Amino acid sequence: MAASPETEHPVKAFGWAAKDTSGVFSPFKFSRRATGENDVQLKILYCGVCHSDLHMAKNELGFTQFPMVPGHEIVGVVTEVGSKVKNFKIGDKAGIGCLVGSCRQCDLCNRDLENYCSKQILTYSMPYYDGTITYGGYSDIIVADEHFVVRWPDNLPLDIGAPLLCAGITTYSPLKHFGLDKPGVKVGVVGLGGLGHIAVKFAKAFGAHVTVVSTSVSKKKEAIENLGVDEFLVSLEPEQMQAAAGTLDGIIDTVSASHSLLPLVSLLKAEGKLILVGLPQSLEVPIFPLLIGRRAIIGSAIGGLKETQEMIDFAAKHNILPDVEMIKMDYVNTAMDRLLKSDVKYRFVIDIANTLKVE
Amino acid sequence: MAASPETEHPVKAFGWAAKDTSGVFSPFKFSRRATGENDVQLKILYCGVCHSDLHMAKNELGFTQFPMVPGHEIVGVVTEVGSKVKNFKIGDKAGIGCLVGSCRQCDLCNRDLENYCSKQILTYSMPYYDGTITYGGYSDIIVADEHFVVRWPDNLPLDIGAPLLCAGITTYSPLKHFGLDKPGVKVGVVGLGGLGHIAVKFAKAFGAHVTVVSTSVSKKKEAIENLGVDEFLVSLEPEQMQAAAGTLDGIIDTVSASHSLLPLVSLLKAEGKLILVGLPQSLEVPIFPLLIGRRAIIGSAIGGLKETQEMIDFAAKHNILPDVEMIKMDYVNTAMDRLLKSDVKYRFVIDIANTLKVE
Repeated sequence: MAASPETEHPVKAFGWAAKDTSGVFSPFKFSRRATGENDVQLKILYCGVCHSDLHMAKNELGFTQFPMVPGHEIVGVVTEVGSKVKNFKIGDKAGIGCLVGSCRQCDLCNRDLENYCSKQILTYSMPYYDGTITYGGYSDIIVADEHFVVRWPDNLPLDIGAPLLCAGITTYSPLKHFGLDKPGVKVGVVGLGGLGHIAVKFAKAFGAHVTVVSTSVSKKKEAIENLGVDEFLVSLEPEQMQAAAGTLDGIIDTVSASHSLLPLVSLLKAEGKLILVGLPQSLEVPIFPLLIGRRAIIGSAIGGLKETQEMIDFAAKHNILPDVEMIKMDYVNTAMDRLLKSDVKYRFVIDIANTLKVE
Repeated sequence: MAASPETEHPVKAFGWAAKDTSGVFSPFKFSRRATGENDVQLKILYCGVCHSDLHMAKNELGFTQFPMVPGHEIVGVVTEVGSKVKNFKIGDKAGIGCLVGSCRQCDLCNRDLENYCSKQILTYSMPYYDGTITYGGYSDIIVADEHFVVRWPDNLPLDIGAPLLCAGITTYSPLKHFGLDKPGVKVGVVGLGGLGHIAVKFAKAFGAHVTVVSTSVSKKKEAIENLGVDEFLVSLEPEQMQAAAGTLDGIIDTVSASHSLLPLVSLLKAEGKLILVGLPQSLEVPIFPLLIGRRAIIGSAIGGLKETQEMIDFAAKHNILPDVEMIKMDYVNTAMDRLLKSDVKYRFVIDIANTLKVE
């Protein structure tokens, strides 16, 4: 008989888990492995709430392993290091994002693209090398190979900085990779939520001219006044969209709901790129506008570890921080209900250190 | 009152035109402009029959101007040159492809991408600078600015080489632009028709490992024995497709009919590119497979004039020639019926010089 989550490893751990597809979270006792020679153990202080956590809690992607402890925007302090660990010592501040493993030897891993390795191991709800299931950051403690741990700059706040580890790298990576990180480049951001508002901040820091595309005019004032957005388009206003046709070099589309791509493709210049970072199931794509401008529709998912460290260092240097609402651990079910209604500006972060009561 | 096609210009011309959306072709008298200072006049010898000719004859793209003389795979001999023409003299062999004009001053034109200029003028059924409608190569004579005329190498046959001017550049350009022109690169070609068979020939000449994806096994023997294809996949056989998942660097998809993209995206490696060169209206795109591999779906349309010349020179050097069926001018309506049923290996070429009877 397989060992239970509580006894399979030697180190006691405690968190909140979804136990079935109802997606309701409740307290959960489990365990963490002993710190291996390449491992770092963290006491978790804060963990961001990503929309994926909600998808996974309801098994909407089809591969959730219950009980499931989500959380992949994890920051904390190092409490133990293995004998071969080079980059961390006890007391250091550190972060863990979406990945805790990959094959480390394929062409993609060799190019620092662990995020596209076919053997990548997600931070929660996936089998680790030893066959046990990974548990994420809605918990008091975590252990990971130091390759997958990010050094946290002294001047970057631990609490509100946490969402950079997923929402930050998810938007930073395509902006950099597809050349949308140059002054004067015209960048569109579709959807002004957890991902979108950070995409805007990075693009502005790169010196880009930023246009937000939203279904509703309600976010316009804040986008322009607080986020410094240069232009705001309401996607349901054909005249506005028509006037902006052919003006953008690239678009970061953060929307997870089904939506029409034709109006977005039409905003692109020739050779422009529509980069999808949300997770709609499938979308209808207009072909003629792609052909007549060598336009592209491309997917992008988080980033590799080297790029994640670069992003964190860039955010610290340029003071790029998510706008967050700090919550208590036992507020998580309410937070998920609000997330479903996009009722958050712009990211929930759980104050693990002060509100997770170990039972 | 506007002048008629027969009298609007000084030079008498004769061809076959579609006169309404029935798409039926019949003899048509019109006229060509006098050779301007930058112009080249060609006596047309051969003209390929492109699937677009059929789409346009039936106004399926919505912008056909009737009466419409199609044909944009035109080869002939120079019969007159303007005073400022530099690259052609009377008696030279020359070709005209899909374009006869563009703005010549935008960023795209300056980068030799006239094919993506928003002011491009197609070889037929579009208003030229002077406001008259362009007529294509199903005719005895044509006049064009020398910038849009291609020099024809001595050793490249005029007759069977004609389809290179559209089908050739349409497949050569994306293979080159997206790095699929290297030895050992794994290239997929979807659809083995007019475009597909030339895509295979170019990819093989570049040294690529070529996989043809087809709905039917019926073309397998010929693909492997005559075209030298390395692998042949039947897209409706899930086991074959599954075994080849994640193996291709790029795919040239030549299919114009509606078809599923998920099986094709699944064949791509991480960072692989599915390049659409056919003209389906819109297609359902699966998002998750794009995200988890930074895969792209990209459109590509013909090529610029500099690249078209490069392609023609490459074809001459490497003896790359389309497989064609030579037809008489008055066979064109039958040819269109057969084209609709994909009953041609692989391209019709009209023997204009010997079979167009000027009435």
